[in-house]
Amino acid sequence: MDLKGLLKKNNSKIVFLVADGLGGIPHPDFGYKTELEYANTPNLDDLAEKSILGLTIPVDHGITPGSGPAHLSLFGYNPMEHEIGRGALEAYGVGFMMTDKDIAARANFGTSDRNGVLTDRRAGRIPTEGSRKIVERIGEKIRKIEDVEIILKPGKEHRFVLILRGEGLSDRLTDTDPQKEGLKPLEPQALSPEAEKTVRIVKEFLKRAQGVIKDEPKANTILLRGFSRKPEIEPFEEKFGLKPLALANYPMYKGLTRILDMDTPDLGDNFEDLIKYYKEYFAEYDYFYIHYKYTDKAGEDGDFLKKVRYIEELDSLIPEILSTNPDVFVVTADHSTPSYWKQHSWHPNPTLVYSKYAGADDRNKFTEKECKYGYLGLIYAYHLMPVVLANAGRLKKYGA
Amino acid sequence: MDLKGLLKKNNSKIVFLVADGLGGIPHPDFGYKTELEYANTPNLDDLAEKSILGLTIPVDHGITPGSGPAHLSLFGYNPMEHEIGRGALEAYGVGFMMTDKDIAARANFGTSDRNGVLTDRRAGRIPTEGSRKIVERIGEKIRKIEDVEIILKPGKEHRFVLILRGEGLSDRLTDTDPQKEGLKPLEPQALSPEAEKTVRIVKEFLKRAQGVIKDEPKANTILLRGFSRKPEIEPFEEKFGLKPLALANYPMYKGLTRILDMDTPDLGDNFEDLIKYYKEYFAEYDYFYIHYKYTDKAGEDGDFLKKVRYIEELDSLIPEILSTNPDVFVVTADHSTPSYWKQHSWHPNPTLVYSKYAGADDRNKFTEKECKYGYLGLIYAYHLMPVVLANAGRLKKYGA
Repeated sequence: MDLKGLLKKNNSKIVFLVADGLGGIPHPDFGYKTELEYANTPNLDDLAEKSILGLTIPVDHGITPGSGPAHLSLFGYNPMEHEIGRGALEAYGVGFMMTDKDIAARANFGTSDRNGVLTDRRAGRIPTEGSRKIVERIGEKIRKIEDVEIILKPGKEHRFVLILRGEGLSDRLTDTDPQKEGLKPLEPQALSPEAEKTVRIVKEFLKRAQGVIKDEPKANTILLRGFSRKPEIEPFEEKFGLKPLALANYPMYKGLTRILDMDTPDLGDNFEDLIKYYKEYFAEYDYFYIHYKYTDKAGEDGDFLKKVRYIEELDSLIPEILSTNPDVFVVTADHSTPSYWKQHSWHPNPTLVYSKYAGADDRNKFTEKECKYGYLGLIYAYHLMPVVLANAGRLKKYGA
Repeated sequence: MDLKGLLKKNNSKIVFLVADGLGGIPHPDFGYKTELEYANTPNLDDLAEKSILGLTIPVDHGITPGSGPAHLSLFGYNPMEHEIGRGALEAYGVGFMMTDKDIAARANFGTSDRNGVLTDRRAGRIPTEGSRKIVERIGEKIRKIEDVEIILKPGKEHRFVLILRGEGLSDRLTDTDPQKEGLKPLEPQALSPEAEKTVRIVKEFLKRAQGVIKDEPKANTILLRGFSRKPEIEPFEEKFGLKPLALANYPMYKGLTRILDMDTPDLGDNFEDLIKYYKEYFAEYDYFYIHYKYTDKAGEDGDFLKKVRYIEELDSLIPEILSTNPDVFVVTADHSTPSYWKQHSWHPNPTLVYSKYAGADDRNKFTEKECKYGYLGLIYAYHLMPVVLANAGRLKKYGA
C-alpha cells in the first residue's frame, strides 16, 4: 500500500508538540513514580480525557535511539530505512544547505596538554562569540587543499562544522574524536579505498589548522566526527502533502527538519518565541512541529525534580498552543530519558492524540501507565503519522 | 539496523526461567480460571509487582508452535527464518555434534505383529538400558552401507538416533513412521532426485536392522522420522554477546541449546539439580536458560490440578533462583499448553521482566489476564531479547 496514493488535501491543521525525552521509569527516591506521574499537569490531563492515548516505539523493541532516528520515526519515516550522519545534521543545523559535492563533519574545539593529550573535549565550553572568531581565522588561512574547497561554519560554544567540497570525496572514514579525555585525538582512517583522498585532505586540514590555534589557551585542538554526505530522503511535504513549519531552539533538530525540507526559522534560545512564531504563522502552514528540549536535558542530568518542573512549565503553555484551535493536536516525545537512567532509553513514548474523531478511550491522565491502557495501543512511532492524517481527514479510502 | 552492531559488554547477569506450556485458558470445571489464576503463587505475584508484564507470541497470531520454533523465538531468533529438523534436535539432544556430512533421523523402536502391522509405536516404552543394548547390537552388525558410515546413538526408552555420514546424502526424504498404530511402517521416498542415494541407504539399513531385531519380543520394528542436516544457525553467544548456560532435563531442549552452541551439561532428570548447578556456576556465565518441563506435561495430560501443583512447586523455587541476584530475571514460557485443550496452543505466553529499569507497570499478579494489561504489551517472543539486553545495559544507542 502506498500512503501517498491515498493523500488528499483540505484546510486542517496538525500540531505536534514534542517534549524531548519525556517518558520516564519509576524512581525509587520519589515513591516509585515517574516524572510525569509526579508532576502537576492539569492541562495535559484535561486533554488526555478528550484524547486517545498510546505508547510509541521509536525504532524497535529494546532499541535506544539517538535523536536523529527517533525524530525520523516521529515524522513518519521508518528509521531503519534511513541513516542521517551527524555531520549533515550539524551542517543543516547551522543553516548550511549541502550539495552533492560536500562531505560534512561535526567539529569541536578541545583542550590538549603539551603532550597532545586531551584534557577537555569541549574546550571549557568557550563562549560562542570567541569560538566564532577562531573559526573565522582558520577559515581565512585555509580556503583550499588540493582541489577541495574548505568551508567552516561556526556553531554554539565549542562547536562548528567542517565542510569539504570537491570531486572524488567520500564519507567512509573514521572520527578523530576519541570520545574520552586522557587520550590523544585519533588519526582519521579510510574505511574503503575511495576515501583515501578525503583522509589526506582531512589530515592536511588538521595540520594547518593546528598551526593557527596552537597558542589558544583553551581551543588548541580540533576533534572531528560523523563525516557524512548530503542525505537522500524524501521531503516531508512531498511524502505527506502537508506544508510544514518546524520550530526548535537547538541546531540538531533544525538540521533534521531542514534535511526534510521543512520551513525552519532561526528563532534563538527561547521556547516562548517558538510559540509566538507558531501563533503568528498558523494560517500559513498545515503541519507544525514544536520542539521542547528541556525535559531531555533534565533527564540526562538525572535531575528528577527539574524534569518535573519542566513538564509543569510545558503544561502551562498548552492553552496558548490550543488557542489556535488545531484539528489534530499531538503531544509526544522522540524517545524517553528517564532521570533514573540519566540517558536516552528504549522505553516507549507517552503519546496523546487529540481530535474530534480520535476514538473511544477511557483514560484521563497523561502518564506512561495510563498511555499503556490507551486506545492507540503500543505502536511504532512511524505509524502515528497515518493515524494523524486520518484524523485530519487527509486520507482517502484504500481499495474498493 | 543490525542489533549486533549495538552490543556492548558488561558484567550483568540475565536469567530466563522458562516454564514449558505455562499459559492456559479458562477451564469450565474450575470456575473458568486458568491454571495460573487457580494456583497460589506468592513469589511470582511479589515479583509481578516489581516487574513489567506482557504477553509474547512465539511465532505468529493463531500459530501453535512446536517446541523448536517456540524456543528459537524465546532465544531471540525469528522462528520463521530458521527451520531445525527433528533428527538434528535428537542428535544434539543425546550429545552428538553433527558435521556437514551427516544426515540425522529420530528413530523409535516399535512393535509389529506377524503381518508387519504396528501394534505399538513405542515398543511398550522398553527400559532405556535394554533399548541401548539392542541399539549397540545393530551398530555392531551395520557399520557401513556402500560408502556411508552408519552411526547409532541410544536415547531414553524406545528412542535412538540414526546418523548417516558420507558424500552425496540429502535430507529430502519422507518419514517411515506412519504416526499411527494399525498401519505398516512406510517406505522412505525421495522428495527430490538428489535424495535417491539416501533413500537406498536407509532402505538397506532398515532391511539389515530388521534381520538383527526380528526376534525381539517388543522392539522388533524401527520407525524413522525428521531426516535433517546439521542446522545452519548463528551461535547465541555470537548473536548477543552473552556467554550462555542452558539447563534442561529433557534431551530435545538440550539438543536445541547445543545447536545454538550454549554450554549444556547433562544433569539428569531432577529439576532441583538444575538449580544447584545454576547457583554453582552463576559467576561463569552471562545468560542462563532454565527449563521447567512439568507444566507442559500436565497440560498435555489435561490434568488441570496437576498443572496447578507444578506451577506452585515452581513458585516455591523462585527465591532460590533470585538468591544469586540477577540483573534481569524473566519468567516466561515457550508456548501455552492449556489443560482444557490438552496440547500445545497458540495462546500468547504470560511473561514477566524484572529489572530496576524495566518501566512503569501497575499490575501485581502473574496471570494471563494481568499480563494482558502489562507495560511490555503483546509482542513477538523474539522481540523480548532486545528488551532484556537493554535492561541489562548491553545495548548502545542507535544513530546520532
